[in-house]
Parts: sequence; structure tokens; C-alpha cells
Amino acid sequence: MSSEKTPVAILGATGSVGQRFIQLLDNHPWFEVKEVAASEKSAGKKYKEAVNWIQSTPIPGKVSDLVIKNCKPNLKSKLIFSGLDSSIAGEVEAAFASKGYYVVSNSKNHRMDNDVPLLVPEINPEHLELIKQQKYSKGCIVTIPNCSAIGLVLALKPLVDAFGVEQVSVVTMQGLSGAGYPGVSSLDIIDNVIPFIGGEEAKMESEPLKILGKYNNGGIENLKIKISAQCNRVAVMDGHTECVQVKFKKKTSVEEIKEVWENFSAEPQKLKLPSAPENPIHYFEEINYPQPRIHRNIDKGMAVAIGRLREDTLFDYKFVIISHNTIRGAAGGAILCAELMKSKRLIE
Amino acid sequence: MSSEKTPVAILGATGSVGQRFIQLLDNHPWFEVKEVAASEKSAGKKYKEAVNWIQSTPIPGKVSDLVIKNCKPNLKSKLIFSGLDSSIAGEVEAAFASKGYYVVSNSKNHRMDNDVPLLVPEINPEHLELIKQQKYSKGCIVTIPNCSAIGLVLALKPLVDAFGVEQVSVVTMQGLSGAGYPGVSSLDIIDNVIPFIGGEEAKMESEPLKILGKYNNGGIENLKIKISAQCNRVAVMDGHTECVQVKFKKKTSVEEIKEVWENFSAEPQKLKLPSAPENPIHYFEEINYPQPRIHRNIDKGMAVAIGRLREDTLFDYKFVIISHNTIRGAAGGAILCAELMKSKRLIE
Amino acid sequence: MSSEKTPVAILGATGSVGQRFIQLLDNHPWFEVKEVAASEKSAGKKYKEAVNWIQSTPIPGKVSDLVIKNCKPNLKSKLIFSGLDSSIAGEVEAAFASKGYYVVSNSKNHRMDNDVPLLVPEINPEHLELIKQQKYSKGCIVTIPNCSAIGLVLALKPLVDAFGVEQVSVVTMQGLSGAGYPGVSSLDIIDNVIPFIGGEEAKMESEPLKILGKYNNGGIENLKIKISAQCNRVAVMDGHTECVQVKFKKKTSVEEIKEVWENFSAEPQKLKLPSAPENPIHYFEEINYPQPRIHRNIDKGMAVAIGRLREDTLFDYKFVIISHNTIRGAAGGAILCAELMKSKRLIE
Amino acid sequence: MSSEKTPVAILGATGSVGQRFIQLLDNHPWFEVKEVAASEKSAGKKYKEAVNWIQSTPIPGKVSDLVIKNCKPNLKSKLIFSGLDSSIAGEVEAAFASKGYYVVSNSKNHRMDNDVPLLVPEINPEHLELIKQQKYSKGCIVTIPNCSAIGLVLALKPLVDAFGVEQVSVVTMQGLSGAGYPGVSSLDIIDNVIPFIGGEEAKMESEPLKILGKYNNGGIENLKIKISAQCNRVAVMDGHTECVQVKFKKKTSVEEIKEVWENFSAEPQKLKLPSAPENPIHYFEEINYPQPRIHRNIDKGMAVAIGRLREDTLFDYKFVIISHNTIRGAAGGAILCAELMKSKRLIE
Repeated sequence: MSSEKTPVAILGATGSVGQRFIQLLDNHPWFEVKEVAASEKSAGKKYKEAVNWIQSTPIPGKVSDLVIKNCKPNLKSKLIFSGLDSSIAGEVEAAFASKGYYVVSNSKNHRMDNDVPLLVPEINPEHLELIKQQKYSKGCIVTIPNCSAIGLVLALKPLVDAFGVEQVSVVTMQGLSGAGYPGVSSLDIIDNVIPFIGGEEAKMESEPLKILGKYNNGGIENLKIKISAQCNRVAVMDGHTECVQVKFKKKTSVEEIKEVWENFSAEPQKLKLPSAPENPIHYFEEINYPQPRIHRNIDKGMAVAIGRLREDTLFDYKFVIISHNTIRGAAGGAILCAELMKSKRLIE
Repeated sequence: MSSEKTPVAILGATGSVGQRFIQLLDNHPWFEVKEVAASEKSAGKKYKEAVNWIQSTPIPGKVSDLVIKNCKPNLKSKLIFSGLDSSIAGEVEAAFASKGYYVVSNSKNHRMDNDVPLLVPEINPEHLELIKQQKYSKGCIVTIPNCSAIGLVLALKPLVDAFGVEQVSVVTMQGLSGAGYPGVSSLDIIDNVIPFIGGEEAKMESEPLKILGKYNNGGIENLKIKISAQCNRVAVMDGHTECVQVKFKKKTSVEEIKEVWENFSAEPQKLKLPSAPENPIHYFEEINYPQPRIHRNIDKGMAVAIGRLREDTLFDYKFVIISHNTIRGAAGGAILCAELMKSKRLIE
Repeated sequence: MSSEKTPVAILGATGSVGQRFIQLLDNHPWFEVKEVAASEKSAGKKYKEAVNWIQSTPIPGKVSDLVIKNCKPNLKSKLIFSGLDSSIAGEVEAAFASKGYYVVSNSKNHRMDNDVPLLVPEINPEHLELIKQQKYSKGCIVTIPNCSAIGLVLALKPLVDAFGVEQVSVVTMQGLSGAGYPGVSSLDIIDNVIPFIGGEEAKMESEPLKILGKYNNGGIENLKIKISAQCNRVAVMDGHTECVQVKFKKKTSVEEIKEVWENFSAEPQKLKLPSAPENPIHYFEEINYPQPRIHRNIDKGMAVAIGRLREDTLFDYKFVIISHNTIRGAAGGAILCAELMKSKRLIE
Repeated sequence: MSSEKTPVAILGATGSVGQRFIQLLDNHPWFEVKEVAASEKSAGKKYKEAVNWIQSTPIPGKVSDLVIKNCKPNLKSKLIFSGLDSSIAGEVEAAFASKGYYVVSNSKNHRMDNDVPLLVPEINPEHLELIKQQKYSKGCIVTIPNCSAIGLVLALKPLVDAFGVEQVSVVTMQGLSGAGYPGVSSLDIIDNVIPFIGGEEAKMESEPLKILGKYNNGGIENLKIKISAQCNRVAVMDGHTECVQVKFKKKTSVEEIKEVWENFSAEPQKLKLPSAPENPIHYFEEINYPQPRIHRNIDKGMAVAIGRLREDTLFDYKFVIISHNTIRGAAGGAILCAELMKSKRLIE
């Protein structure tokens, strides 16, 4: 790896996911934010003047004075992190890829495209092969899952491999930052629960099937299981909590399940990618753990916390997952994908 | 019915459930709080001086100056509402019953006793027959369900009758008042979810089977279904939200289910009991309804709100329930039971 | 008073203040909402389809199906309640007044106009004389104070009369509903305080001087005192809490101050106006009272709660006020003004 | 300084302040937690088994397995950090000091003793001279201010020095962790403000006078100013927000005030004490800053954030302060004191 950092551009840099990209890439060993792009309204302004910064650490000094560019494929950085709104992400990302850019996207638009990896480096690094099917001569689009799906698939992956999974039922209690900024009105959520998040249940029922699917002969064979999802918004800043029930193919035990979770380690850990959590899964024995405020930042927000594994009366087992929706579930997850691509020399 | 009100005593009168009894019985057409009893620490003091009143309406004037008595079966009122802590409720309530008192209890201790009704007036008024099995010559104990079970059983009752139910899976997001006062520390729940409530899941998996069971020859035949429950505490003051999945015996449709819910009316409605909700079940079509802050007070907190009925990938249908945990799920529910007993002349 | 209700139109009917007007006017003995008007975007739709209803009681049935009209002075109802945004309220309200409508407005635009009453019926009913100065042949504009000023002026009025006031310092902790809907993002206020509300401090420092001023010869002589205001937003749904320090002209005592507060009663109480609180001021002796969640709804949200009166090291006394910002501080306050006008036959 | 770390014992180690000591001392360059002591109830148990750990980082490994000792002066570590409850702190701390221990205490008991420094290393390092007046042959007691006073005195110190201060009025909105654990019930604070904190206003009105006083001939001459304090509890986890008004002796300007704040640097900065913030005071120009969630962790929670400096109608200027109540205002502040003492060779 050369000693020079790969220059990086952020699309949608003033939004909440864009801000997280900038925060997490501050002092990144491989990547450096050289360009920020956003809507016409912001283009031309200094970043610090256009952004309504809502992170709890200050704007990194170097980014602070960058002049915001338009989201057009005439940027100098070849590696693009996209935090664009889904209303425009589809076209803009395709335009960049067709001009030779490497686009790693947090948006939903291309996730289910047949030739686009829905990448979780610990789970399906081989899905990167799909890039070869893309119509772009040199550029590419790689996507990451919805913030509610990432915790679930990381918890399921070792179970699928060890015991086989037949059915999954999940009910979420999702953090507010998942709705972007300004997102959910305070009048709607204080002393309240909103038992509905537009489009979320459909994503949770479909994306895991592709992520956990097999790359085969230029395409993905989806995992053939059934998932039922119910999604709720609760008064939590960051972190999605998920109550999961699972039915296995093979008989197993609480001890065996904990063991495969605790031993789970994959390519990002072997490659020691800078953003890889040391352990992708942390299991907690405390009876009232995991909790979003306490566990969302585990391994810098890149790991999932699991607890309360116990037998279920209808399925085989049930348990609770916490994952950080804007780190592992958005910007951090996308950065890990780019690290994997870079280490595989898919990014020059 | 005589024009004089039945005198009533509240056990555990200073606790959060005790306070609700006093609040809801203010200006009750049939009952009047004449005595309040609590722990030794409070006995002998004026109510207003011993209580840490946390309701949003003031202490009713007549109760305010009552002197607190001990929880011993030498009270003048024959009708006893018990909001005692379960650590002592079992023995105290039995002592009262054996001295000829009518005890309506919110505590868990006697709920699953073979000869004690676990009473929901809209569902199983005939379970009151069990009282005859009790060993007390004249007194009796009647119990109400756990605050998380009441919403579920009211929603299930018309479905059990119309279509038969085979399996139920429920995940709750429960209000803080369910834990009593001071209950949950603010440091534990702001910006957080606690995915555990001691003993709650076992109650939700067992109590509905008795409540929905049949009175037969001096005993209850439990309903033979399987329930799976997962219980969470969220930052909501009052109101339990429940995400429910149901598998039916008979094929049915969204329209038929809504119809049986909307038409559901039972004995308390026929008898026009003072605390009976006009409609025990309200169905909402809005895509993001029901919500605890908006719907917990429906029909004075005595009805349940349901919404989001839709097909499920694993079960047949799923939906969301809201019910008020300290009104319908505690004091209000117990008062309705006493009203039913009074109208059946089981209380003199 | 004739037995027929005065027909009323609401401008800005879909906004948060507009909704409160509709909620509070449901079953009003004198007024009936016959027309609702809002922006072009909503005009032509049924009210229930255009509104994002955020109140905790359902939309009144009669209003629910009204078709929304434009905010143009061709409505049939002569009495107009305006909950318009200040960006347009100024011109629209003037247009209505000049066509002969009686406009009672919650907006800031005309509050400080020399010929417009800034009306608090308990304090300055004689300011209605200003209407005669207005250039409109028959119509008029009457305004109510900012939601943060109303609690302060009600608390100050009897003190000004009894002891004379020289200096007032106030720090507020204001509820979220004061910012309208969607208003404050949940990401900005959970686990946080925002020590700034645009324009609020200037209003609190100026409006009370006019409200407490004297009508004299066709104009208002402002009260000559100095007020310092600091305004904060906190995570409270409804209700403004204010920490107040006061320096008096005459020496007084805690007992005397409590006495003038408790004895305070004014024209709306004498006239028994339907929305008048029985007591405009309630004083609480409990050491940790008043609190917004407990006291905001006192006297149906139309009274203020005061507590913690004690000596101050710099001023003479300090105390805490709670008032309901969208009832007494907005829709309810405006309705009380219209009731006063009606009882004085200023509205035909 | 020797390369070996000074062994340290924590009194009240399982409480919320005790936990913060343990968290902040993890990997401290000079000090190492070797002993933990707590009430009889916990003594004899392993720390991890006795504590209800509520910090957002895990229990440091080395402390986790320490066996809890009694709070008796037979510990091996000579440096004692006390997070004891004030109901017992007075006697226990004196007992330790009289046996030769160096006690740095967070409790209120000895703060106002004539011979006990109320130490803020940036403000009054010379107050350490008071130790010589203490009756203990070798040991000593040093105290830190109340968590609400620390932000205020840090903001005032450079103003007192540059312009002279005559009057200070402060209204606080304080975080929940200031009340310890479990502290404030969630039912008391969600959707609410509590305008009262026992004893807090008296502390804020008196402690700053001693802290900002002059050491003179074996005693402290208090600063002769008047402070008025009003204290409120709000739904914020950590961080105290304070609205301050100040009247100066000398005329000054917004620019001059900002300048003295930004240039403020003192002995801990010169000595480069490990826990010293680089800048004790950070001024923010953003119109709605500072905010507790965004600024409480500035300089690792050891600095104060100030903003909104503007002229006042009654005093000269007003502004807003944020400080971290359990870091700078408790454990972190005490550690900084011990660092100062160690660097001055007052601790062997």
C-alpha cells in the first residue's frame, strides 16, 4: 500500500450521513476527504457555512473550509462515498460510475440490482465479483444494506453457516438518526412510539436474503428463508434494537449458538482493515443487556451487541441485537467496504 | 341498586396503582373511597401527608384528609381494591378474604390459583363462578391480568371466537408507569431501551391462556394455544405498545378481522357498567397509528386501540395494539370487575 | 345573548395553533367553527385529509369534513381566529379587517401597532377602546401576547397594582409545541437544551410593557419598567416554565404577595366568560412545584401555576411560573378575548 | 516524577461519582486505582459483582476483580478520592485525614471549613496553603466545588480579574447524573422540568465567594459580591446549562470579554497536568450554542463552553455556560486537584 492516502469525495456531504462520513474519515489511515459535494443550494459555499453540523465532535479542520461542489461526475477523487437522498441517488450514482468512479453508496436505489453487490465485508466479500457484470468500463457501484438490516445479518451469518436458518421474525425499535435531519419531529416522539417507518419492513424482509445469498456464476442466489419484520421508531438518538426469533434447520443449544457468535471472525478481521471491529459480535450475559445507549459504540460502533439468548415457545430461540445505525449501519459500513475494495486492489 | 354508594377501601393506597384507584373512583356513581390503608410507615398519617402524589390531577378532597390505616382485616368497608406489592399481597389478600371481604386485586399472587377468577369483564364474566370454589365462607378474591396481557387478550377475544387462534407472537414496548414509582431511573431510560422486564414474558405467555379459557364444571380449561412474548421498556410515560403476529385456525381476511373487532361488544357494554368503554376496541386506518401518547386515553383509557393490520410472511396477520397500563391495565380494570360483581349482586 | 352560536372561521386551520382552536371550540357555548381556511396547498381538500392532526383528542366530527377555503376575505363568518404564520399574517389579517371582519390573532405582526389591543382580558380589557382608532370602518384586529409573555404578565398584574414593580428578570424553559409543527427536530432536543429561541427575548422584554400599560386618550402609555429575558427550549411537550426575579417599589412580604395572587380575579371572572379560569392564578406550597407536566392543564390550561416564592439576594423576590403555551398562550387566550368582545357587544 | 504510579483508593466506589473516578483513572499516567471501598453491603464482594455499572464504557479490567473494602482508614493507598454520600462523608474523610491520608473529596461536608481548600486548580492553587492550618499531622482534606458552581466560577475568574464583578444572577438547567443513581425517577422528568434541587441554590450562592477569594495570612478572604441562583432539573443526561447575568465594576465590551475568556490559561495549563484542558474556556459564536449534548465533552469534559454573550437590560452582560457535571464537576475536577498536589509534592 502506498504511503499516500487515497483522495475521497463525499456526495450529500451536508446531510446526516455525509457528516458521519466526514467525522469517521478524519485521520483515516488510507483515505482523505478532498472534495465535498451537495445540492445546488449549498454548492459554492464553504462547508462550515453551508452545513448544519449535528455531530458531537467539531467539523474536522481540513474539511471545514472546503468549497462545496456540485454532485456532477467531474470531481478529481475517484473514490466516492454517497450519502445522497434516494430521490436523486439512483441517477447521480450511475452517472459517476459510468465516468469511471468507484461509488460506495448508502442509498437504497441500486441495492437490489442484479449486478450490484449489497456488501457486508464480514459476510459476502465474494459478492464483489458482481462488479465485473456492471456495464461500466472502469467505475462501479457498491451498496451497503439498510441500517436496520445490518445488525440482523451480522447476527444471522454465523447461525446460517453453523445450523442453517429457516425462519426469522424481527421487531425493531429504531433510533431517530435513522430518519436523517431534521427527520422526526420532537412533538411526534417524546413520550411516544411510532409503530411505522415507511418502506423499512420491506427492506428488512428482502435485503438479508441477497446479502446472505451465494455468488454463483455471475449472479447471486438468494438465501431461501422467510423473514417477517415489524419496525418501530422510539425516542433513542442512535442505535437500533431488534428482538429476533429464529427457527433453525439443525437442533442446537444456547451454548453452541454463543460459541459460534463469539468465534465469528471474517475477512475484514484477517486483513486487519482499519475500520474492522476486532470482534464483529459481542455477546452479553447480563440479564437486561444489550441496551442502545450503552452498547451502540462497541468497537467504535462497528460491532453488534447481542444478549438475552433464550428458548422460544414458537420458534427455536430468541435474542436481542443492538447495532449503531449511522456508523455500522451507514457511513462506517461503507468505509469498511471501500477498505476491503482497496485491499483487494479494486480501487487504484 | 340502592342510592347509597358502596364504601370502598384501598390497600397500598400510597403506591402508584393505589393513587390511580383514588383518582378514578373520585365521583364514581356506585363506589366511594372511605378508607385508605398502607404500610406501617404511612399508617396513622393523613393521606395527603404520606403520599408522594404523582397523578396529573389533584388529590380528591375527601381522600386527602383520610387517616391511613394498617392493611389488616379490621376495616369497615367490605369492598377492597388491592394495589399491594406482590411481596406481601398474597397473604394480606387471603387474610381479608377469609374475614369476609371482597378483594379485587391488581397483584400477581393469586392470579393463577385454580379457584380465583382472572377476570376481564368483556371476556370471561362467567369465570366469576369460580368464587364458589373458594374456601372463604363469604369473602372472595378476584384478580385482574398483568398490564401487558390486558391489551392482548381484548384484541384476541373476538378473533378466537370468530376464527380460532393457533399461535400468537408478541413484542411489547411498555410505558414507565408499569414499573411503579420511583420505578425506572431516568438515567436508565432517556435515549435508551431496556429489553427486559422481570417476570413479564412468563406472565404474557401464561395469563391469556386462562383468561381466554372456558369455565367448566368448577374449573377453567385453558385455551390451548402457544404464545411467545418479548418485553421491552421504552421512554413512554403511560401506555403499552404491542406488535402482534397471529396464526388462525380458519382462513380469514383483513376486512373480516376489522369487522369482528369493530362489532365487539360484551356484557359490560350491555349492562352499561359505569367504567365500561363504549367500544372495547377501536381500529385506526392511519398508516402510523396507533401511538401511545395519542391513543392511550381512548374511551377514558378503558379501550384498546389497534392499527396496522396486514398480512405476515410467517404467521397469517400482524397488527399493533395500544392499551393504557395503569387504567385499563390496573386500577380501571379492577374497578370494572367490581362493577360487574356489584351488578351481579356478588357484592352486597 | 341569542341562543344561536356565532359562526367562526379559523385561518391557518391546519397548523398547530389552528388545530388547538378547533379542539377548544368543540362544543363551545357561544361559537361554532363553520369555516376553515389554510394555504393554497390545502385549499379545496377536506379538513381531515389535509391536516396532520397532532392533538391527543380526535378531530371534532363537524370540522372533519369541512372543505378548506383560501385565506381570502370572502368568508361568511365574521369572527376570525388567526393562527397564521407571521410571514403572511400581517397582510392577510389587515385585508380581513378592512372588509369588516373581527380578527383575533395569535400572530406577532400587529401586536405592537399603536391602534391594536394586545389583549389579556384579566389585565387590560379597557385596551379594547383602541379599536375605535383603527382605520377599518367596521372590522378590527385584536391580538394576544407571545406564549412566553402571557404567564409573566398574569403573575405580574396583581403585583404591579399592589406594590409597584421596578425590575423583572426572567429565564424561561419553554415547551416544544411553542415552535409549531414539525418545529424542533427530535435530534436537537432529546438529552439537550437549546439556549436560544429566535426573537423570543425581544418579545418578552417589550410586550409586557404595553399589556400592563394604561389606556389614555386613545393610546397606551407603556408601563415604565425594565425587563431582562433569557429564553431556552427544553424537552417538554407543552408548558412554559419561567424563573422570575422581581424588584418592587413598595416593601412587601411573602404572605402579602401570596394573598394578592390568590385574591386576583378580574373582568372575565365577573362576567363568567365560558373560557375564563375560575382563578387566574394558583399558588402551590409544595417545595418542588410548579411543574409543567403536572400544572399546565390547571383550570383547563387557562390559569397559571406559581410556586417557590422566596426572597432574592439581588432583587426582592423570586418565584416560578408555569403556563400552557398553546392553550392560555395561544388558542385559548384568543378565544377568551373573543368572548370578552362578544359580551361587550363588540362582535355582532 | 518517579516512573511508578501513585496507588489510589476510591471511597464510595460503587456510586455514580465513584464509577466516574474509576473510568477516568483508567490508564492515568500518574495514578492507579489499587483499592476500592464502599458500604458494608458491598464490602467483601468483587467490584464487578457489587456495582450497578452505568457508564458507557466497560469496567476497567484491573478494577473489575478488586475485592471491595470497608471505608475505614486502614487502606494501603495514601491518596484517597472520595465520592461518599454526604450523610457519612464528613466523619469518614476526617478519620482518613487524621490517619495521614490525602483525601480529595467531592462531598459538600468540609467545603466551607476554614482550613479546607475549595480547590479549582485554574483559579485558586494558592488556597492549598490552607492545608498547613489543618490539625492533621500529615494527612489532609481538599475539596472540590458543587457541580453547578464549577462552570460558573471558571467563567467568572477571568472577568473578576480583568473587570471586577459586582453582581451575578444565574439560573441553571441541570443534568440528571448530578442527582446520582438511581436519582431522579423517569416518571418525574420525562416531558417535565423540576424547578427545585435541594440545597443547590445555597451552594451556588456561597461557594463561588470562597473559591474566588484571596488566601491571606492563613485564611481566605471571600470575594465580596452578591450571587442569586435558581436551580432546575431538566431531562438531560449529563451537563449543566447556566444562564448568567453579570454586573461589572469597570465598563467593558463584548470583544474584551471574549478576549479574556479565550486567553485564559492558568497553572494546570503551565504545568501540563495530565487532566488539564488545553483551554479551560471555549467561546462559541453560533447563535444557538452552547448546548449540553454537543459541548459537555469539550476537552474531555474538563473545559467549559460559553456562548450567547450579549448586553443585558438590567445587568451589564448575559451569557450561557455548559459544563460537564460528573467530569469537570466531580471526578475529573478532583483528579486535577490531586495532579496539582502531586506536582507541588504535597502528595508523596
